[in-house]
Amino acid sequence: MRNRFDTQLTLLNKEIIEMGALCETTINAAVKALIEKDRALAKQTIEAEKQIDQKEKDIEALCLKLLLQQQPVARDLRLISAALKMITDMERIGDQAADIADIVLVADLTLPTDFQDIKLMAEATIKMVTESVEAFVQRDLVLAREVIAYDDVVDDLFDVVKDDVIQLIGDMPKADKEIRNQMSLDVIDILMIAKYFERIGDHATNIAEWVEFSITGTHTEQEE
Amino acid sequence: MRNRFDTQLTLLNKEIIEMGALCETTINAAVKALIEKDRALAKQTIEAEKQIDQKEKDIEALCLKLLLQQQPVARDLRLISAALKMITDMERIGDQAADIADIVLVADLTLPTDFQDIKLMAEATIKMVTESVEAFVQRDLVLAREVIAYDDVVDDLFDVVKDDVIQLIGDMPKADKEIRNQMSLDVIDILMIAKYFERIGDHATNIAEWVEFSITGTHTEQEE
Repeated sequence: MRNRFDTQLTLLNKEIIEMGALCETTINAAVKALIEKDRALAKQTIEAEKQIDQKEKDIEALCLKLLLQQQPVARDLRLISAALKMITDMERIGDQAADIADIVLVADLTLPTDFQDIKLMAEATIKMVTESVEAFVQRDLVLAREVIAYDDVVDDLFDVVKDDVIQLIGDMPKADKEIRNQMSLDVIDILMIAKYFERIGDHATNIAEWVEFSITGTHTEQEE
Repeated sequence: MRNRFDTQLTLLNKEIIEMGALCETTINAAVKALIEKDRALAKQTIEAEKQIDQKEKDIEALCLKLLLQQQPVARDLRLISAALKMITDMERIGDQAADIADIVLVADLTLPTDFQDIKLMAEATIKMVTESVEAFVQRDLVLAREVIAYDDVVDDLFDVVKDDVIQLIGDMPKADKEIRNQMSLDVIDILMIAKYFERIGDHATNIAEWVEFSITGTHTEQEE
């Protein structure tokens, strides 16, 4: 019985690693689609998000099976309930990446910017997602807490993008209202994209907090 | 044993009704704080969000107890796992309301608007939250599906707010850069607030989808 339980826990780890990898791939694809204005890749990203949803359902079923059949206690129970919570955040990360891809599909961003600060947000959030999953798999409390602290970097970058946007609005051509309207649409899209990355950072923080809980038994939440 | 199980299920219903009521109160308070520029109420809203977090933990513990001690099957198992998922969305609704209150605290919105379209978003999302919880408690599949359909109303209102914002940017005074910068800050805040309401609508939709699952055993997700 115990061996079977360990086998299922190993499977749970494997599944969560796979779900984490899917999240990273999806964020990367969304960013690439955005920067290269690649609508085909954006479509693929939105498709990939469905795999993440399916993976969540599979892991959820596995967790419930573990809870019902194995009656885990203490540390194992914490581990499984942490996994149940983590996958909800991972699924939301997939949603946010798909939302970014969706903007690429519907919008035609013509703003004079190379998205540098958005790129930095993307790198920072991908790092957080990777390391939060790594922390779960390795039961690494230190790494989990590093992820939680790193969310400040993403929040600061979000403020930088807001400043970029204020600059852009300030520099809009006064004469041509049509161009201003187009630029306003772009500004809204850029703000939304930055917001999605900020949320991805929040979800990675949540994951790290659940890792902390699975190890220490204490669940603390950061102010977002 | 069965009676004890039913008693705990009744308690679960009661707790979820209370958590839903907390969510509604918090959204209402956030909106009031926003419209009346009431910083004290904004602070209270952020405090109230902590109650929602605590309620989530209580319900989670109850659900795990039900799963571990009672070994529910079929419909009851679906009901409890649906509850486990729902409370995560309810907790996020509290987060979004607190995020709105947070903007009221830090920002000094001076934009010439009575927030009419934001008010409409608030009403629509509160209706969705109330009815999604009602649908769970009454096991009302029809009401759950009405909530899911109603999310389109919120999404359309979000587009209206975006149009308002484009109008505002277009009408900004050309001469005074300082005023433009202040108005740009306000525009960003209004967009974020509208985004939070749109997300509250998404979470209410998720809740309704879990209600649907708890009744039918099938979980379908809307495109957000």
